[in-house]
Amino acid sequence: MADTFDFGLIERAPFCALLGIKIESAANGEARVRMPFRLNLLNEGGPQAPIHGGAIASLIDTAALTALLTAPDLQRTATIALTINYVNAGVHSDLIASARLRKRGRRIASLSVEIADEAGQLIADALVTFRIG
Amino acid sequence: MADTFDFGLIERAPFCALLGIKIESAANGEARVRMPFRLNLLNEGGPQAPIHGGAIASLIDTAALTALLTAPDLQRTATIALTINYVNAGVHSDLIASARLRKRGRRIASLSVEIADEAGQLIADALVTFRIG
Amino acid sequence: MADTFDFGLIERAPFCALLGIKIESAANGEARVRMPFRLNLLNEGGPQAPIHGGAIASLIDTAALTALLTAPDLQRTATIALTINYVNAGVHSDLIASARLRKRGRRIASLSVEIADEAGQLIADALVTFRIG
Amino acid sequence: MADTFDFGLIERAPFCALLGIKIESAANGEARVRMPFRLNLLNEGGPQAPIHGGAIASLIDTAALTALLTAPDLQRTATIALTINYVNAGVHSDLIASARLRKRGRRIASLSVEIADEAGQLIADALVTFRIG
Repeated sequence: MADTFDFGLIERAPFCALLGIKIESAANGEARVRMPFRLNLLNEGGPQAPIHGGAIASLIDTAALTALLTAPDLQRTATIALTINYVNAGVHSDLIASARLRKRGRRIASLSVEIADEAGQLIADALVTFRIG
Repeated sequence: MADTFDFGLIERAPFCALLGIKIESAANGEARVRMPFRLNLLNEGGPQAPIHGGAIASLIDTAALTALLTAPDLQRTATIALTINYVNAGVHSDLIASARLRKRGRRIASLSVEIADEAGQLIADALVTFRIG
Repeated sequence: MADTFDFGLIERAPFCALLGIKIESAANGEARVRMPFRLNLLNEGGPQAPIHGGAIASLIDTAALTALLTAPDLQRTATIALTINYVNAGVHSDLIASARLRKRGRRIASLSVEIADEAGQLIADALVTFRIG
Repeated sequence: MADTFDFGLIERAPFCALLGIKIESAANGEARVRMPFRLNLLNEGGPQAPIHGGAIASLIDTAALTALLTAPDLQRTATIALTINYVNAGVHSDLIASARLRKRGRRIASLSVEIADEAGQLIADALVTFRIG
């Protein structure tokens, strides 16, 4: 599936489109995925409010799926566990997810994802587990 | 803050408004929060596709915050860690979060959140940690 | 396997024996497992030091496995993800784990575990995911 | 505290001594910590059984604490959240933890830990959160 999967399918999923998530690259178990800054991603508090933790979680889940889908011979997958450590608030910036496949087993895949802002500041670390098949 | 906090502030946060999240009740360290079914919450695959894991994470984070804000004497809070076990796909249903404050320390609060669909089927279990102050 | 599994196998596993972990009950997707207080479970700081987070994690993993093994038709299992929220220090007390099977799928099982001390104070909440087969 | 902390205190903590955990290096927010292979770390199943998930969790928690304690001006810390993705079984091998401080805030620190066996195979990824002060 690696060289044939249409990653546009991920971007066009309704929820990803709602958030404006864009895949920048995806190959060899890695993906770089961007969530451009938008006011409707914010928590309460005006334009300098932090980006909502749920929006960041959405970017993480999407980036992990994208990295996983670079692996060959996948049929169906579903997220089964997701952990996020939020380390800095994301304020008035695009967020960029870097996802990496750590292990692809026969039935389970494990990935790590790092979220940074445009200045390169770390926003969150995450671990994501998928069921395969 | 319990009897004076305006929970409408949470619903009107831009990202919660984008997702349509509604607080049904909040008192004594517990909250019940609903995310009505909408097509734009879905993953790819048409109207019977599962609700995106990031939308579920958003509901969890919001419900945990709501339950926490029922506690007195809170000033500022931020999510610092979030873990979700996704156990069943959420398909064509409102999702209802039941959040419960498990421990409120001086600097840290810990909550558990359960997500169910309208039929009462368990969709996800979560643990959420907040920094206080 | 529910009524035939020998839970003594779990207690006699070398690491469980080293920590003194004892299964008190196991049936219908639930288990109650005890780790009696011992000085060699402590972190640094003398007899009033807290019990080491790793000892608590060991109790959690063991209790979750025990609850899972009450389910029928299991062959092989392995822990794939474990999250713990430590909410109070465990000081000079037996610790008691209450584990509950939340979902048993075909390939994946999810459990929640609560750790309390002898006074009933909450020590930790946990979510555990197992691979089946 | 960085250049004066006695890391031997960690190794001599009763539970770390019970498991045989040894600190190999600790500086600048990073630590390398080893758990030598011992039969009493195993799950049930004889000398080729996998190392117990709780023993691996113990190594992770200890390595994260060690990396954190390289930071200056720490007084008291406690683990508040721990997540582990177990990706390969640890079989008949020393395990080596590489811990890295990802963010040290005023009240909260976040670390990532990777566990490998002697052959360099990835055994587990983890995220650990500590309360400071």
